[in-house]
Amino acid sequence: METKSRFEFIDITAQVERVVAEKQVDSGLCVVYVSHTTAAVTINENADPSVPSDISRKMEDIVPLRNGYDHMEGNSAAHIKSTLVGCSEIVPIEKGRLYLGTWQAIFFCEFDGPRRRQFGVKVISG
Amino acid sequence: METKSRFEFIDITAQVERVVAEKQVDSGLCVVYVSHTTAAVTINENADPSVPSDISRKMEDIVPLRNGYDHMEGNSAAHIKSTLVGCSEIVPIEKGRLYLGTWQAIFFCEFDGPRRRQFGVKVISG
Amino acid sequence: METKSRFEFIDITAQVERVVAEKQVDSGLCVVYVSHTTAAVTINENADPSVPSDISRKMEDIVPLRNGYDHMEGNSAAHIKSTLVGCSEIVPIEKGRLYLGTWQAIFFCEFDGPRRRQFGVKVISG
Repeated sequence: METKSRFEFIDITAQVERVVAEKQVDSGLCVVYVSHTTAAVTINENADPSVPSDISRKMEDIVPLRNGYDHMEGNSAAHIKSTLVGCSEIVPIEKGRLYLGTWQAIFFCEFDGPRRRQFGVKVISG
Repeated sequence: METKSRFEFIDITAQVERVVAEKQVDSGLCVVYVSHTTAAVTINENADPSVPSDISRKMEDIVPLRNGYDHMEGNSAAHIKSTLVGCSEIVPIEKGRLYLGTWQAIFFCEFDGPRRRQFGVKVISG
Repeated sequence: METKSRFEFIDITAQVERVVAEKQVDSGLCVVYVSHTTAAVTINENADPSVPSDISRKMEDIVPLRNGYDHMEGNSAAHIKSTLVGCSEIVPIEKGRLYLGTWQAIFFCEFDGPRRRQFGVKVISG
């Protein structure tokens, strides 16, 4: 996918659920991961769009874009946010579906866009 | 369970161990997860109760309750902490038991209590 | 292993890959975990050594060593960083190898060294 701005939280729950449905695994684990070092995956509320935007804004507050970093590419803040949020989430699968709470959605977190990005979904039965 | 205050770290290791013992899985993975978006799960020291209280207090320092957030419900700080700490932990199972270090305990992290809360335990053999 | 300074990010990707290769699992999950409460595991860029050093330095900025903590041992900052970064990472295994992006490496994060440390690798087929 193509992200559109520097910071962006994209709800990918429906895409992950589609993969899980295709795998026809009744019970197991689903791992959602990114192979990028300036992005992340998180689970949080999607009902009110101000939740992901508050998270994104506060992350920028905690880890400002410019802060005397050494990394030449100038995107150290994005790397740090990636480590703080984490590049994967694990969700149990019950009765063939992701076991998520009413308000939980899976978000791809862009910290250094716009870029071409991808995420992976791994399903394990058990 | 019922949490009692706004911020609370509750040691749930014994309850998780009970589920693992019941499953009689010799080797595998145990995922502990919460389906809430204003709570989290972490692994840290439980020997000295000042460790979880220092963590909780510092989290409040990094992500203050009021900070010009947009989310109408007024609990954005709890959502942000949930993303920073994460809503699940994964622990290997060896010889039928959680493979935890001497000082490691699993904590349910309440960031927006008091509330009725629950956590899940998923055990995979392998 | 023996860490050498108080803060240190050690690239352990090659060691983890060796364990995965030995297990001869074609498809599955690999969990890398530490059983310590003042260390962590993260995935980030290893091409430019200033990336892990910027992360380590910013973590020190967010969670200073001395900050009025209660914990008697004086290493609360390390415990807090461990909770923020997390004590495990999960990586999918595809075609017998860790599925990591071009720039991704697995780092052991020392927050309270120098100490004798260890990490574990758990491989699940599926």
